[in-house]
Amino acid sequence: MKAALLGFGTVGKGVAGIIDQGRDKDTAGLEIVRILKRTPADDPRITLDYRDIEACDAELVAECMGGLEPAHTYVRKALEAGRHVVTANKKMLAEHYIELAGLAKEKGVRLLFEATAGGGIPWMAALRRLRRIDDVQSFRGILNGTTNYILSAMTDAGLDFGEMLKKAQELGYAEADPTDDIDGYDVRYKTVLSAIAAFDAAVRPETVPALGIRHISAADIAWGREHGRIVKLIASGEKKDGRLSLYVMPQFLPDTDVLARIGRNFNGVEAVSTTLGPSTYIGQGAGRLPTGHAMVQDMLTIAKGEEMTAYEAAAAEVDNSRVEKRFYIRTVKPEVFAGVMAEAAGTGAFVTECMPLIDLLALIGQAGDPELFAAVVAD
Amino acid sequence: MKAALLGFGTVGKGVAGIIDQGRDKDTAGLEIVRILKRTPADDPRITLDYRDIEACDAELVAECMGGLEPAHTYVRKALEAGRHVVTANKKMLAEHYIELAGLAKEKGVRLLFEATAGGGIPWMAALRRLRRIDDVQSFRGILNGTTNYILSAMTDAGLDFGEMLKKAQELGYAEADPTDDIDGYDVRYKTVLSAIAAFDAAVRPETVPALGIRHISAADIAWGREHGRIVKLIASGEKKDGRLSLYVMPQFLPDTDVLARIGRNFNGVEAVSTTLGPSTYIGQGAGRLPTGHAMVQDMLTIAKGEEMTAYEAAAAEVDNSRVEKRFYIRTVKPEVFAGVMAEAAGTGAFVTECMPLIDLLALIGQAGDPELFAAVVAD
Repeated sequence: MKAALLGFGTVGKGVAGIIDQGRDKDTAGLEIVRILKRTPADDPRITLDYRDIEACDAELVAECMGGLEPAHTYVRKALEAGRHVVTANKKMLAEHYIELAGLAKEKGVRLLFEATAGGGIPWMAALRRLRRIDDVQSFRGILNGTTNYILSAMTDAGLDFGEMLKKAQELGYAEADPTDDIDGYDVRYKTVLSAIAAFDAAVRPETVPALGIRHISAADIAWGREHGRIVKLIASGEKKDGRLSLYVMPQFLPDTDVLARIGRNFNGVEAVSTTLGPSTYIGQGAGRLPTGHAMVQDMLTIAKGEEMTAYEAAAAEVDNSRVEKRFYIRTVKPEVFAGVMAEAAGTGAFVTECMPLIDLLALIGQAGDPELFAAVVAD
Repeated sequence: MKAALLGFGTVGKGVAGIIDQGRDKDTAGLEIVRILKRTPADDPRITLDYRDIEACDAELVAECMGGLEPAHTYVRKALEAGRHVVTANKKMLAEHYIELAGLAKEKGVRLLFEATAGGGIPWMAALRRLRRIDDVQSFRGILNGTTNYILSAMTDAGLDFGEMLKKAQELGYAEADPTDDIDGYDVRYKTVLSAIAAFDAAVRPETVPALGIRHISAADIAWGREHGRIVKLIASGEKKDGRLSLYVMPQFLPDTDVLARIGRNFNGVEAVSTTLGPSTYIGQGAGRLPTGHAMVQDMLTIAKGEEMTAYEAAAAEVDNSRVEKRFYIRTVKPEVFAGVMAEAAGTGAFVTECMPLIDLLALIGQAGDPELFAAVVAD
């Protein structure tokens, strides 16, 4: 199957390299005929002009440009032209899923997005496979390698957040502007896309509560260690009794939890489904070859006409009203939480009684402490 | 697709239940038309006579009888009759793979075996999927739930092996005769089948070195804890420079290793492949529904005509000559190991220098200590 590539950065180069070099594998059935790039290069397939992509004979478009525009417009046009699309662009797809999936259905083409969440981990494929037999009841996982690298290193080395962020930036694991990663927005998009794949439920990204790790301190990590717990940034989703709960928060996991032991910049995510129960998938959550691998898997799935069961996500609302947890809070405004405090946890920190997440979020809003750190104390 | 079921024990009931009740899923495309059982029951599909299976119009036979015969003969006959086969019978398939896979190829039908290793974990499917793009370079994993239950409980509770085995038997996690599980033979069959799926290499089961956990003591577990290590029974496979290494041994894993944290009776296995690097798959390794789920996934894969890339395993030889490790040994014959001893590890126990596995196995044979315990000290 002939394919066009939109974007020739880290992931695009991974996709092209895997296909160009994979002549003895199933990848031999794929061919990159055109590549859209921003600056000239000497590969004859490369163009700077989107009209060359429109004019080429690719049946499939692989989008790895990132950003909302022009990626959204290009993907829309590709679908309108009756081309299959695979994308690694979590933000664009989480924002525009309903429109783009509707268009794909109308045109009888496919829209796959393995590379948007969990990098090389076959997470979306695992969900599609589970759902051939099972209902997926819940998921939870580590879906951001940057923050996992920082948290793992803070846990292992006892270093502070600022030092670790700087090191992660030097190693290329974190962006110069790390907001999307450390404030949980990146995981929020991935949570939205996981809910689409797991529950057929497409929610607006901004309705998923997302708390990040920007204000975690070595003291918080130390409190976890003293209590046999390891902190991870966790995406959680559950569909139960018609209620869809989705939220992104740091969680102090028991150190016996497999997710607690996913180190370095790895990702890992668990689904719970009706007959299989829990199943967990772990691997490299980013990088040229792992993410390229995920995109090429989607391209092969389309070329082979596999995994064709039609799951149709509809617009849905987040309802976290049944989520009740104990929370760890560090704030300079503890008085706001006086009614829910259960035990002290060191200087300026405490653990709440088991309470509704939505009540906690209201109190956090009320406290207005820009450096507050909050985490679930998982059972 | 119409299917016949051979065997109606735990797994067979799981398969039938999932299909009979899965009317709103892809499983609606499957129908169990005949069931071979040893004793009468009131389901009209049940027969005690294999000739009724031969006479029925099933296109697919799902074998979950266990044992070598008559399972082997029935599977052979099904393939000869041009029927697809899925099996959960690791011992039978590991013994007869070359014959049965050749027959399937000759007849143009498929032979899938997801349920033979890792229960509900999509391990064989993960390997097939990886190989669409990658070469699999190595695998290692926990593939026996009984021994993992025993080792996890010994690690958590500090109990001795005999007590834990008794408890596992009471809970139904271990057989009355636990030899196959605790001496590593069960994992050996699973290792053979994993090597078929990962490397296209079919070895004779008896040529895979397998050391079990029968003689592990609370003192061994305690030594691990003191050294930040957790012991697990690990299947290992690697293909490198044309050499195929395969062995089954307890391993003291660093407690930061994800496999070290796979608790209870869960299974988990990691593949390392060219572009994805390491990817790990964890779930319930046994039980009515998880194993039933795995068999039904194979049945769906056949019914849908998916994952059709033909991997053809050929007869191969185990070559562990390049495997070099440090080993933990407890024996009443330490003098046999005098030349390789590196440090003491408590009463009657020691750790060797880094040395070839095949030399260690020769020394173990020479020692002739029936209660010797040996484990890899993993890096």
